[in-house]
Amino acid sequence: MPNERHITLPKGFVAAGVKCGIKTSGLEDLSILAAQRRVPAAVLTTRNQVVGAPVTWCRGLLPRGFGRMRAIVVNSGNSNVCTGPGGLRDAREMAERTARVLNAEPETVLVASTGVIGHRLPMAKIRAGIDSAAASLGVGCDAAALRGIMTTDTRRKSAVVKARIGRTEFALAGIAKGVGMIAPSLATMISLITTDLAVAPAGLHSALKAVAGRTFNAVTVDSDTSTSDTVAMFASGAAGNAPLGPGSAGFGKFAAALEDVCGSLARQIVADGEGATKLVEVTVRGARTQADAEIAARSVANSPLFKCAVNGGDPNWGRIAMALGKSAAKVDPARLTVKVGGVTLMAKGLPRKFDLKAVARHLAGKEIRVLCDLGLGEGAYTALTCDLSREYVAINADYRT
Amino acid sequence: MPNERHITLPKGFVAAGVKCGIKTSGLEDLSILAAQRRVPAAVLTTRNQVVGAPVTWCRGLLPRGFGRMRAIVVNSGNSNVCTGPGGLRDAREMAERTARVLNAEPETVLVASTGVIGHRLPMAKIRAGIDSAAASLGVGCDAAALRGIMTTDTRRKSAVVKARIGRTEFALAGIAKGVGMIAPSLATMISLITTDLAVAPAGLHSALKAVAGRTFNAVTVDSDTSTSDTVAMFASGAAGNAPLGPGSAGFGKFAAALEDVCGSLARQIVADGEGATKLVEVTVRGARTQADAEIAARSVANSPLFKCAVNGGDPNWGRIAMALGKSAAKVDPARLTVKVGGVTLMAKGLPRKFDLKAVARHLAGKEIRVLCDLGLGEGAYTALTCDLSREYVAINADYRT
Repeated sequence: MPNERHITLPKGFVAAGVKCGIKTSGLEDLSILAAQRRVPAAVLTTRNQVVGAPVTWCRGLLPRGFGRMRAIVVNSGNSNVCTGPGGLRDAREMAERTARVLNAEPETVLVASTGVIGHRLPMAKIRAGIDSAAASLGVGCDAAALRGIMTTDTRRKSAVVKARIGRTEFALAGIAKGVGMIAPSLATMISLITTDLAVAPAGLHSALKAVAGRTFNAVTVDSDTSTSDTVAMFASGAAGNAPLGPGSAGFGKFAAALEDVCGSLARQIVADGEGATKLVEVTVRGARTQADAEIAARSVANSPLFKCAVNGGDPNWGRIAMALGKSAAKVDPARLTVKVGGVTLMAKGLPRKFDLKAVARHLAGKEIRVLCDLGLGEGAYTALTCDLSREYVAINADYRT
Repeated sequence: MPNERHITLPKGFVAAGVKCGIKTSGLEDLSILAAQRRVPAAVLTTRNQVVGAPVTWCRGLLPRGFGRMRAIVVNSGNSNVCTGPGGLRDAREMAERTARVLNAEPETVLVASTGVIGHRLPMAKIRAGIDSAAASLGVGCDAAALRGIMTTDTRRKSAVVKARIGRTEFALAGIAKGVGMIAPSLATMISLITTDLAVAPAGLHSALKAVAGRTFNAVTVDSDTSTSDTVAMFASGAAGNAPLGPGSAGFGKFAAALEDVCGSLARQIVADGEGATKLVEVTVRGARTQADAEIAARSVANSPLFKCAVNGGDPNWGRIAMALGKSAAKVDPARLTVKVGGVTLMAKGLPRKFDLKAVARHLAGKEIRVLCDLGLGEGAYTALTCDLSREYVAINADYRT
């Protein structure tokens, strides 16, 4: 197996992934990512009000979303959601056991779980898995660590950026899993991101939050929001730079690297969406406000009719106008322009004669670009989605709880 | 052909439906419903910001949604949406010509259109159709009038109630079309309702609005909102009662009859949803507020994952909990109870052991009932939807604009 490197490519991290027997497939289902000491860390969790015990644990550790953490332990195959106080004890025990093998404090270990909901974790397997993972921690196990967080993903999702701030070389890397809200009930977007830059915790969090809003949060496979979504980032400081904060000279370069990695992971998630055959970029510009741009772009990206039209390769601008109009964003039909693949289908609210063949060729491709100019202001946002296919329904209808 | 009676069953109305050549199928595509004089009328139109010219015309006539009207003219096969100022002139001409043949004022004739968008109406055909419909107006043409408003509907949708207020016998009837937002781009929910009761215009509107909120607006086939949805109601007063207003003794009976008719039409629309194999009633109760109940019920009813699970007959309560949690309504997982077909699947946030066979039997049926008790207050709402099937995708992906 090629020894792929990503999350341990930034200096100062080790990782491992082991098979502890949660997944019936017998594949890796428990991973640990650890820094060599407590390092600045930031975590973003789902906006769903129904959350898994691991999310509750992480929020308890980092109520403001940032601090100094040592590690994260992740299991797949069971999400520890809707498991009551016992589930919360299990999440705590995962942190405690991981802390013990790392010789760290439990309050420095984040936890994430993904998989079936409504079942208690098989803690005997988890305990053995944590011990076994701890024994194999290193910089050569990134591939196994990635497999350990995956559920029904059909592709491995990772991204790496190497760059320089002044004379400091640094690396920033990430892995992710998530394909929609899939089997057995709710699948989850989990992403782990590492860098060897020194970044102050609050700065790490503010950059991650801003970038996630344009990348991970721009993704909508089916408008359904998991109960367990978690993005965790660690900055080891091993690159040796003076710690960066939002005012620092190098902060922009760091944020750009972060955006590259998160943007790449977000696109990889969409491309692996359930039943997806195409990646669709819906850009709204000219919105009255930034918030309006986001609302309008999501309304198109979530419209089942629009997504079916993309699946069928139909240049159905009417469905785009409908989806914009039904949104809470301000829309004036008389100012609305819609382009697909750069070709104007509708201008100032009226249909345009267009080169049907050129649009059909674009729609037959793998990456579809839709641009809606609302003509009302400066707000702009791009949402990422995939088409809605018969396979999506088949995957989600035929699954048995 | 059996001479079905519905919208002219209430005394004081005539109707007609003719084939004027808009639809390529050659079926009826233009209908007129007329009272014998100006009578109290109310109209509700789409909340979509992109609206067809006929909606603009109706709003211009009845800015507050009620007044005294003589008739409505409806065509199918072309929705007169995204047609600019010319489209608005066409809508006005439809009203003017209908008014002329009825010897009425153009400002007393409502207009509705449904079908392809982005194309000007074939006005020569429309003019001939209006003349021909006017010539055949009567009480024996209800079936043709209903066919004239239909597009891709696979079933005819009508409902009639006969009842009494004191010694006054009255009838209340309605017809509807709409199957989701279907071919060619946006299909539309159009409903025409008649009664021979005398009801004051403002009372007619307030009752229609309240009832529509619990019936037509409770329907969500695919979360997509047409640009042309229109519900128009006329009250001829031919039953001879003293005019009813919200304070009148008989107003409750009138409102109940209206709710029966609209509720029946709403269920007929859902059952004829694109690709639908099941009708799904999602009731949320115990919500903090009425608005929260509606938001939460719609979030479940619109969740693609939930709708796929229903299609597959899977008792996937996790997807229901997820859809509640992602909504803007307040949800406390620890108070959440979910029942399907009367069987408790989740209580106070924890999964319950349940009789899988009993739930599977319920899910194998044609009408599925989901009850979510949020345990937070008194708000309650029932949303109506259908399952999401491969056929839905097939219908919407394979259509060619």
